[in-house]
Amino acid sequence: MRAVTFQAPGEVRVEERPAPILLAADDAIVRVEASGICGSDLHLYHGRIPLEAGFILGHEFVGTITAAGPDVTDVAVGDRVLGCFVTACGRCFFCRRRDFHKCIEGRVFGHGKTLGGLQGAQAEQVLVPHANLTLRRVPPGLSTDAALFAGDVMGTGFHAVRSAEVAPGDVVVVLGLGPVGLCAVQAARAIGAGQVIAVDSVPERLAMAERFGGTPVHLTEQDPKGAVRKATSGRGADACIDAVGHPDVLDLACRLARNGGTISVTGVYSERCQVHMGLVWIKALTLKTGQANVIGHVDAVLAMMTAGLLDPTPLVSRHVPLAEAPEAYAAYARREALKIVLMP
Amino acid sequence: MRAVTFQAPGEVRVEERPAPILLAADDAIVRVEASGICGSDLHLYHGRIPLEAGFILGHEFVGTITAAGPDVTDVAVGDRVLGCFVTACGRCFFCRRRDFHKCIEGRVFGHGKTLGGLQGAQAEQVLVPHANLTLRRVPPGLSTDAALFAGDVMGTGFHAVRSAEVAPGDVVVVLGLGPVGLCAVQAARAIGAGQVIAVDSVPERLAMAERFGGTPVHLTEQDPKGAVRKATSGRGADACIDAVGHPDVLDLACRLARNGGTISVTGVYSERCQVHMGLVWIKALTLKTGQANVIGHVDAVLAMMTAGLLDPTPLVSRHVPLAEAPEAYAAYARREALKIVLMP
Amino acid sequence: MRAVTFQAPGEVRVEERPAPILLAADDAIVRVEASGICGSDLHLYHGRIPLEAGFILGHEFVGTITAAGPDVTDVAVGDRVLGCFVTACGRCFFCRRRDFHKCIEGRVFGHGKTLGGLQGAQAEQVLVPHANLTLRRVPPGLSTDAALFAGDVMGTGFHAVRSAEVAPGDVVVVLGLGPVGLCAVQAARAIGAGQVIAVDSVPERLAMAERFGGTPVHLTEQDPKGAVRKATSGRGADACIDAVGHPDVLDLACRLARNGGTISVTGVYSERCQVHMGLVWIKALTLKTGQANVIGHVDAVLAMMTAGLLDPTPLVSRHVPLAEAPEAYAAYARREALKIVLMP
Amino acid sequence: MRAVTFQAPGEVRVEERPAPILLAADDAIVRVEASGICGSDLHLYHGRIPLEAGFILGHEFVGTITAAGPDVTDVAVGDRVLGCFVTACGRCFFCRRRDFHKCIEGRVFGHGKTLGGLQGAQAEQVLVPHANLTLRRVPPGLSTDAALFAGDVMGTGFHAVRSAEVAPGDVVVVLGLGPVGLCAVQAARAIGAGQVIAVDSVPERLAMAERFGGTPVHLTEQDPKGAVRKATSGRGADACIDAVGHPDVLDLACRLARNGGTISVTGVYSERCQVHMGLVWIKALTLKTGQANVIGHVDAVLAMMTAGLLDPTPLVSRHVPLAEAPEAYAAYARREALKIVLMP
Repeated sequence: MRAVTFQAPGEVRVEERPAPILLAADDAIVRVEASGICGSDLHLYHGRIPLEAGFILGHEFVGTITAAGPDVTDVAVGDRVLGCFVTACGRCFFCRRRDFHKCIEGRVFGHGKTLGGLQGAQAEQVLVPHANLTLRRVPPGLSTDAALFAGDVMGTGFHAVRSAEVAPGDVVVVLGLGPVGLCAVQAARAIGAGQVIAVDSVPERLAMAERFGGTPVHLTEQDPKGAVRKATSGRGADACIDAVGHPDVLDLACRLARNGGTISVTGVYSERCQVHMGLVWIKALTLKTGQANVIGHVDAVLAMMTAGLLDPTPLVSRHVPLAEAPEAYAAYARREALKIVLMP
Repeated sequence: MRAVTFQAPGEVRVEERPAPILLAADDAIVRVEASGICGSDLHLYHGRIPLEAGFILGHEFVGTITAAGPDVTDVAVGDRVLGCFVTACGRCFFCRRRDFHKCIEGRVFGHGKTLGGLQGAQAEQVLVPHANLTLRRVPPGLSTDAALFAGDVMGTGFHAVRSAEVAPGDVVVVLGLGPVGLCAVQAARAIGAGQVIAVDSVPERLAMAERFGGTPVHLTEQDPKGAVRKATSGRGADACIDAVGHPDVLDLACRLARNGGTISVTGVYSERCQVHMGLVWIKALTLKTGQANVIGHVDAVLAMMTAGLLDPTPLVSRHVPLAEAPEAYAAYARREALKIVLMP
Repeated sequence: MRAVTFQAPGEVRVEERPAPILLAADDAIVRVEASGICGSDLHLYHGRIPLEAGFILGHEFVGTITAAGPDVTDVAVGDRVLGCFVTACGRCFFCRRRDFHKCIEGRVFGHGKTLGGLQGAQAEQVLVPHANLTLRRVPPGLSTDAALFAGDVMGTGFHAVRSAEVAPGDVVVVLGLGPVGLCAVQAARAIGAGQVIAVDSVPERLAMAERFGGTPVHLTEQDPKGAVRKATSGRGADACIDAVGHPDVLDLACRLARNGGTISVTGVYSERCQVHMGLVWIKALTLKTGQANVIGHVDAVLAMMTAGLLDPTPLVSRHVPLAEAPEAYAAYARREALKIVLMP
Repeated sequence: MRAVTFQAPGEVRVEERPAPILLAADDAIVRVEASGICGSDLHLYHGRIPLEAGFILGHEFVGTITAAGPDVTDVAVGDRVLGCFVTACGRCFFCRRRDFHKCIEGRVFGHGKTLGGLQGAQAEQVLVPHANLTLRRVPPGLSTDAALFAGDVMGTGFHAVRSAEVAPGDVVVVLGLGPVGLCAVQAARAIGAGQVIAVDSVPERLAMAERFGGTPVHLTEQDPKGAVRKATSGRGADACIDAVGHPDVLDLACRLARNGGTISVTGVYSERCQVHMGLVWIKALTLKTGQANVIGHVDAVLAMMTAGLLDPTPLVSRHVPLAEAPEAYAAYARREALKIVLMP
């Protein structure tokens, strides 16, 4: 089969690879019909996260099950399904607590050995471990593009909002309007946030945030602090979402939050950094962190998508054949698109 | 001042009454500009709930503060405000737990001695005890009609949804599409319910439920059980709201709920009745009951109204001068309207 | 193997039965070393719950795994384990929400066809479906008697307290001091309840409740209402536990609870009955009902037992050889014991 | 009246000061019978937190109300009461959410202008603003020493445990066994923690932790990481409490916590510091921070003290007359005592 493989920083290739075969009793194989290029693929593409040469990329996919082990019972051969970006066993301590994102067997598609050595989904076929939890049927009437987001980007945006414990009527700030931040804006609105202040410095993203129900505020040309103050009688935001993963953003989140507020740190951190713990402490903030529990949220996300309450499809900038993945990656790296969908 | 008073079952009158005066340090007086006739007023009108002759009716109001005691600090003379239907002291055991609806000094406007002897708001002026908690400023840009609902009908619909612990994506059933049930439909949707099955037998109410984002199902001419089954793969609803207050409705709610589901009993019960505790128990249901905690919810409701996420104004059937209250009550008793607003 | 079988109301027999064999990949077989007779066995014994003649009784057990299917990974052959009274698949909608007690494959040991047709544990061996969830290793140092309670009676008492949402310092009422009620008294205390008012009319049970940290109050010779009033400045209990399953008890629970309080209905209901919904509603009570989620609680219960915070062993009245089961049942039916342990 | 005043770093004095008078309608004056010296007094004593010369120290007190303004209704002249270390108005946004520790009028006794300019309680009398919330009656039978802890040190230890969301059976780590840490150990146990690993390097404190139900582990001479691993099958602690307020302690807390665990940061932070956000994020930790909500917890703490579930009195090293405050401060600064009580 053909697959998009990482070769070296800045270089991906479409090459022939052996088709996957079932390895475990709860594995499934999906014939991919659409696979997204995601912001986290760029970290691999640029070599910021090391990846073995030849490894298949991609962790967002929609397709049809063509084979399944005997323990696959929740989905079946012939089902049109979407995948979550990460797997979960359903049996460990964490899965039994619904903390599927901390599953001891959790593996991320297309991220190489360090995240479980699971080949990616930008290919004609993909092997899906723990298919009962990792896959979901595409609900009737839901578009392929929307489904592609449920198990990754929208699942993460939704998680950001839920982990921030946003209550109806709350004022929420989303810092960073990449696809995850934009999905967080929409999700916050869809569960009743009174106002969602969306901060970035890219006009197109600010415009999309507004389309998604947010109040766009340019990071430097406008006044995020003033906007929050105005929206909250000077009190500060009930919840702030760091959708970037940078100490300056976390710092700004802490400054914009009200006393007793919550910061959801959805952006990835991998190192030590300076945190103004004095500010955090005096404001009695709560910090919620970590990878999104998309498996825990995907059914709710799909229900809301089906109901029309969530619709990330405006983020899809273009659809391209799998064969054009190298150009698509290059374009994505130039930030010419919010989401590119590869069609094998 | 002129005021709408109860005289005898089926008879209200607009008569001259002495203007209220401040009695306590946290009292305020509001010059009423709009006051609603509510379903619970009908219980009084029909004599089902006894009321002293001459008592002023009405517990929904918007107006301007004309006088305030020295302890009124959260609002001020000149503020345009809306009232909650019930007062709360803010200091007792219950208020400190945010269970404002169980305040030991809770008094309901316009319901006579048994509920605190507090004269009603269908009048040119109304005395408001514990004004700091009972009143809220009308947010800029919010219509008078919308504001009128925040502290009563929408507050109650919203409470029904919140006490039912509706989560994003859930399937919710609302039984009974009076104004409270309709507001519950809209509120469930606004906080992300995946589907809201709205059951009644009055076509106009079913149509309004659909307009409010619900899936209308006629109680007898259609098949509520089938609709729930279809929406939930046969599992039953995550939450059911009894917005009527009748044992048959409660029974239906228990039948439509899934195992482990929640029933929010918002409709009023005042007596013993048969409950299928066997069914309740085997399904492991949770029943949440009681008057709505509107004071606890009113800020969220106002924020969502201001954001356009909640809009009950389509429920307002007509505006009439205070002087025409007798005709308005008669029309409302004939169910010719979902909400009538009196304009003093 | 020898096993205790139901024959007819009032008649059990120890007879030879074929040893169980593994049927499913996640089955295990346990060689039983101790098995309890429980209050719910009496319902079967007396014929109040119908059971097929010849069915093996018993749903509390401790023993050693002698065989296990290939999918049994959380425990292993040779492990000393305790069982929960009910099984759970770990994969269905309910299990994934941690509502293990509502598992669509839930089967109760020793209760005949209507509860899943799973032979009981008052036998030399017992077949355990879904062994990964249904069994737990007996922690080092924990007595067999204590372990026997973890998956049934203490699990249920603990569930009663947790589902009642008891907070530290709360005043809790437990109505009915059978083994479950007594465990609820102890569990409430162990999680910090300020006072646990324990109500029954049997002096020995009241004495045991006191030993377990409760304040014993005789149902008729003392004044439960007065005791609650005194403990709560007249306000009523924060939480009441109906550990009986009788409308009069539920009614008393509702009367003893404070406004906004919670009633945990742990006693079994199987039919319609009168409930004072007027009282429930005016007090804004929450009712939590249903079978205990012992699988969800068993790890916490074991940790607390190991820590010495929970110790139900004083409830064990006697140990008898399996062969003497008929006499043991008769004695238990005469209420001569709180817990009898059969030793195969 | 006589009072303990700060003069200069390392110097306190007992001097004559004017007796307080009522200033606001909800003020009370308490004739102090016992007042504690607390670890946070040392920060002032050493000059680490600047304080005006002549300011009266002390924020823990028990005494009798001798005067009260007209709005003081929850307590009365003649009542024996204990105080919380901080005041709360009961009316602001935060108080209405029960976030009393973030009250916009919150003032800390005996901490000088920066924390509200409220004179301290190490004196014969103390003025108590917002007496309805700041004071509580000493429950009958509760010792003065115990009562002294309810509104400060035990309230803070209890808060640490509650904000860490400790569930029954959990494994909890407390880092730093000063009085707050020790109270956290006891509180964790009293609400059902399965094991409380108590870490410090002072043998006496470790011994006290053991007496309070903890598992003492010497920070350097023993192996905290190994102890946690052993207690949790290698998984890590469910919750860790940083009762010190130092980046190294926070770092250790993050290392000892399991994936998805909670860190309660009760120790005070006032500046920027390095935090291993990479570790925090990859483990998906939750950080809860800030001053304790003692007013929110004091009723539960008192109920548990009265029930004998919490008893901090072993922490009281000695009682001394107010006149000997200078020597007492010096001794406390030499860490010769966990708690010294001054008796005016």
